[in-house]
Amino acid sequence: MKAINLSKKFEKISDCWAPKIVAEMNDYQFKLVRAKGKFIWHAHEDTDEAFIVLDGELTIEFRDRLITLEKGEMVVVPMGVEHRPVAQNECKIMIIEPRGVVHTGNARVLTGVSL
Amino acid sequence: MKAINLSKKFEKISDCWAPKIVAEMNDYQFKLVRAKGKFIWHAHEDTDEAFIVLDGELTIEFRDRLITLEKGEMVVVPMGVEHRPVAQNECKIMIIEPRGVVHTGNARVLTGVSL
Repeated sequence: MKAINLSKKFEKISDCWAPKIVAEMNDYQFKLVRAKGKFIWHAHEDTDEAFIVLDGELTIEFRDRLITLEKGEMVVVPMGVEHRPVAQNECKIMIIEPRGVVHTGNARVLTGVSL
Repeated sequence: MKAINLSKKFEKISDCWAPKIVAEMNDYQFKLVRAKGKFIWHAHEDTDEAFIVLDGELTIEFRDRLITLEKGEMVVVPMGVEHRPVAQNECKIMIIEPRGVVHTGNARVLTGVSL
């Protein structure tokens, strides 16, 4: 058990849209992501997904609207809801979701790796 | 589904050590807490507990050591580990844990209420 400094963890992350696991709580994981540009449309059929913006601004597009999150704001995307994260400028986000969830949801590519 | 601004939520919280639920993800809850002074020693027998410091500084005392968290730092206290949060000056923290967990753990007093 140790203190986890989120800014320092981000110094080790250079790639965008590459989730890094920084902590685990029961069967959930805390992942840090540098985001820039458009991610892909996807949904998580089995779980909600929490986004917290730590720096910058993130827009999450939904099929019927969009939600823009500034630093210090969060949203929980409900299970099964299609969404696409978009960041015009690079931003830093934390994602919280169950272990084993792949960040591309039903458009599976890769899962987070530990930092 | 909506953006949750954590700073604005804190404007509605005046009491210390009174967790307010601001979001839910599956069967987990995100709670905001103003902390000042010493909380009580307790443990959660059934779950880990995540602390994220949003503003100020929080020390978590354990029986064998202590961990101090600054703004932007987090820790996950493992299930069953006795701990006591202490804040010399008022700080703002987010706690993430399963729904129904009482913040006093095995020293039960009250659970969070929705904000």
